[in-house]
Amino acid sequence: MNKLAKNLRQAILDSGLKDGMTVSFHHHLRNGDYVLNMVMDEIAALGIKDLTVNASSLFDTHRPLIEHIKNGVVTTILTDYMSAGLGSFISAGGMKNPVQFRTHGGRPADIENGRTPIDVAFIAAPACDPMGNLKGSEGRSACGSLGYAIPDAKNARFVVAITDELRPYPLTGWSIPETDVDEVVVVDSIGNPAGIVSGTTKITRDPVGLSMAQTAVDVIKASGLLKEGFSFQTGAGGASLAAAKYLKDVMLKEEIKGSFGLGGITGYMVDMLREGCFESLMDVQCFDLKAVESIRSDPRHREISATHYASPGAKSAVVDSLDVVILGATEIDTDFNINVHTDSDGRIMGGSGGHSDTAAGAKLAMIIAPLSRARLPIVTDRVTCISTPGSTIDVLVTQKGVAVNPKDRELKLRLKDAGVKVMDIHELKELAEKTSGVPMKPAIGERIVADVIYRDGTVIDHIREVRA
Amino acid sequence: MNKLAKNLRQAILDSGLKDGMTVSFHHHLRNGDYVLNMVMDEIAALGIKDLTVNASSLFDTHRPLIEHIKNGVVTTILTDYMSAGLGSFISAGGMKNPVQFRTHGGRPADIENGRTPIDVAFIAAPACDPMGNLKGSEGRSACGSLGYAIPDAKNARFVVAITDELRPYPLTGWSIPETDVDEVVVVDSIGNPAGIVSGTTKITRDPVGLSMAQTAVDVIKASGLLKEGFSFQTGAGGASLAAAKYLKDVMLKEEIKGSFGLGGITGYMVDMLREGCFESLMDVQCFDLKAVESIRSDPRHREISATHYASPGAKSAVVDSLDVVILGATEIDTDFNINVHTDSDGRIMGGSGGHSDTAAGAKLAMIIAPLSRARLPIVTDRVTCISTPGSTIDVLVTQKGVAVNPKDRELKLRLKDAGVKVMDIHELKELAEKTSGVPMKPAIGERIVADVIYRDGTVIDHIREVRA
Repeated sequence: MNKLAKNLRQAILDSGLKDGMTVSFHHHLRNGDYVLNMVMDEIAALGIKDLTVNASSLFDTHRPLIEHIKNGVVTTILTDYMSAGLGSFISAGGMKNPVQFRTHGGRPADIENGRTPIDVAFIAAPACDPMGNLKGSEGRSACGSLGYAIPDAKNARFVVAITDELRPYPLTGWSIPETDVDEVVVVDSIGNPAGIVSGTTKITRDPVGLSMAQTAVDVIKASGLLKEGFSFQTGAGGASLAAAKYLKDVMLKEEIKGSFGLGGITGYMVDMLREGCFESLMDVQCFDLKAVESIRSDPRHREISATHYASPGAKSAVVDSLDVVILGATEIDTDFNINVHTDSDGRIMGGSGGHSDTAAGAKLAMIIAPLSRARLPIVTDRVTCISTPGSTIDVLVTQKGVAVNPKDRELKLRLKDAGVKVMDIHELKELAEKTSGVPMKPAIGERIVADVIYRDGTVIDHIREVRA
Repeated sequence: MNKLAKNLRQAILDSGLKDGMTVSFHHHLRNGDYVLNMVMDEIAALGIKDLTVNASSLFDTHRPLIEHIKNGVVTTILTDYMSAGLGSFISAGGMKNPVQFRTHGGRPADIENGRTPIDVAFIAAPACDPMGNLKGSEGRSACGSLGYAIPDAKNARFVVAITDELRPYPLTGWSIPETDVDEVVVVDSIGNPAGIVSGTTKITRDPVGLSMAQTAVDVIKASGLLKEGFSFQTGAGGASLAAAKYLKDVMLKEEIKGSFGLGGITGYMVDMLREGCFESLMDVQCFDLKAVESIRSDPRHREISATHYASPGAKSAVVDSLDVVILGATEIDTDFNINVHTDSDGRIMGGSGGHSDTAAGAKLAMIIAPLSRARLPIVTDRVTCISTPGSTIDVLVTQKGVAVNPKDRELKLRLKDAGVKVMDIHELKELAEKTSGVPMKPAIGERIVADVIYRDGTVIDHIREVRA
């Protein structure tokens, strides 16, 4: 007895997928993912229509979804992130139902509390045995952690694992156990390794980025949080990585033994683990090959589910214990609200991911952003879209100075005492406008193309159609 | 922010525990467990009554439950196993509501499908951090796997972790993540190490046992299952362990590379792993210190949840892939039905544990039992209690010969061809009666003191009061 399906079509038929149901996908294969397109093409060929796609993130490689939307195969999209390829189509009004954006924590919460039930979950499985024990850290399409797929597998009515590397039973060190898997489909390839993870993620060489990274570390030092037991998350952007590098130098020099690094994990965080800055890494997603190798071989580097990472529905999540997170922004307004969903023109090119979750959880939520980008000011009166509420953001680091949220009075004093150049956020806005000019209001229409659902389930903003 | 409760009483109050609710416990601390008694005493002191106790197993150390039953604190017991201390009290009619016996697989199935909801789960945690990430393999009360506690933690409305070893956040390698834990209580000691696991489990020296063990291995060899990919479970009884030892010798000599060892794990299974008989161990419970040390340090030795072990409600469980299981019996009848709940007098002194689950799953379910024990024949016309239906049992090994279930025609031929002494089970019964005499019918009354609920949820037998 095993769970091997003859092929993908058979697995879809066995799943009982019907018009109007919900299918789900995870994004650990990132821009190298073949699985979502493969499955949606087969579903379309079977004539099934009016589906909801619940995907933890959508990348440019998923642009074939546009045809399925046009043909009525897909009528609703739930996701935490959507890159510009699909985002432009949505922003241009290509879909009737608004996209529902959630956060990486809100998504598992809503899957688990039944608000967004999944009929059939399709799990890209870099290694899998014939009973469905599966993992992400091995195989030729290895992507490391499968954290975002875990709640899908646990809660979907029917679960299909799709693998290009079938291993003997029992595959140990599973990300997802056989208890959650109905069928296994073996295919030639689940992804393009070149798109799955970067060979290496690189720190910025841009002097503005490096200067902001240095300031970020000055702020962390001054905050009083950089001490024994320190915990940290940062993104994979160039300036964030530079901050991680500078932070490591400080921790090693001052012999500060932190507790954990969190998040999407890069080789820079792995270096911090190996050099003793952290006791462990809590990894919901690997960003580069060094992280994949580390999660495969180092027991201090642990896979966590999206629930464990960030769910507000869990009895607690790791973000609740986080000291410092460094985050990006496409816009920040004078109330510290952050936009990471759209560009300044209002076109969808991102999403919260774990932005709101970590901002809400961390003791110090820091934004690093240059004052302007592509000649558009980043600091504005009002963000085009509220992704993360200003009440959860503590500090903005730019190349010209640092703004502290007025709610953080003590932090402001600490930064000033430490000689950090603290400015009012309105000053930074004026400086940005002086450099780049006051931006034109984007040509935004009335029609809602996406809802931004905060991690607590409330809709905190709408994204409207952008007129061509 | 952390989840540390001031004390156990406060945690019980915070849990909202009220009259008529259900509390749950796991049994990895076995006869060394302090947690169940500690919790029940505190609940009794708070005046809470009419509770259901859902415990994966109950040992002699839990005899203080008798007072709580008498006082009306506990009015219903759900368990998979009950040793004689409490069992005699139940068999004498000490409790109004029948005990509900389930199996180690049926219990998590019924917790997960909502048939036996848990209000408050109390988890004995050998190591735990202040947010509730907890594990069994470390700490001075280390017991290894916490497999039976995992479904409780996942599904209970409120979960209290009770630990005597608080570790810094985040404790990695968790058996149960913080996502499932509401509060953490630190106590002086959760158990008596001497009672938690045996220092070592020992093979029998009894020649009858050794002879049966040798025959058991002959049967396994003759069955055709002992080949590359072989998987195996055995109990911790002396003859079963001897069989494991002999089996290891055969596997090493014949260079047979098995896939996995399953179950409650002993040092003998660890030896088989280390010497290359298996690729991995799938461990729902550790029986001795060697197993605890192994699960702590050897990544091939994996903790599995009770669900993953044996739940018929899971999409599959490891028992479904098991080749051979060696099991014990207090009685076996000529239809191959097995009793492991009561002694021949009808008094409760055991329970199915994983007996029915592994028998149902394994390709070869073998019973090892001497023809008689304490001058009572083991093979009878009808078992006093059906724990495991005969339809799931393949073969009985005794010191006088081997009986094959008539359904297994090919197996019978294979055994005969291999020179195994195959006898009809009726012959074995007569032989047993010739040695020990026909047993007196036990003095069993009408009143039902326990229901035996098979892994599929059906009541397959009742256990009745034993008149003094």
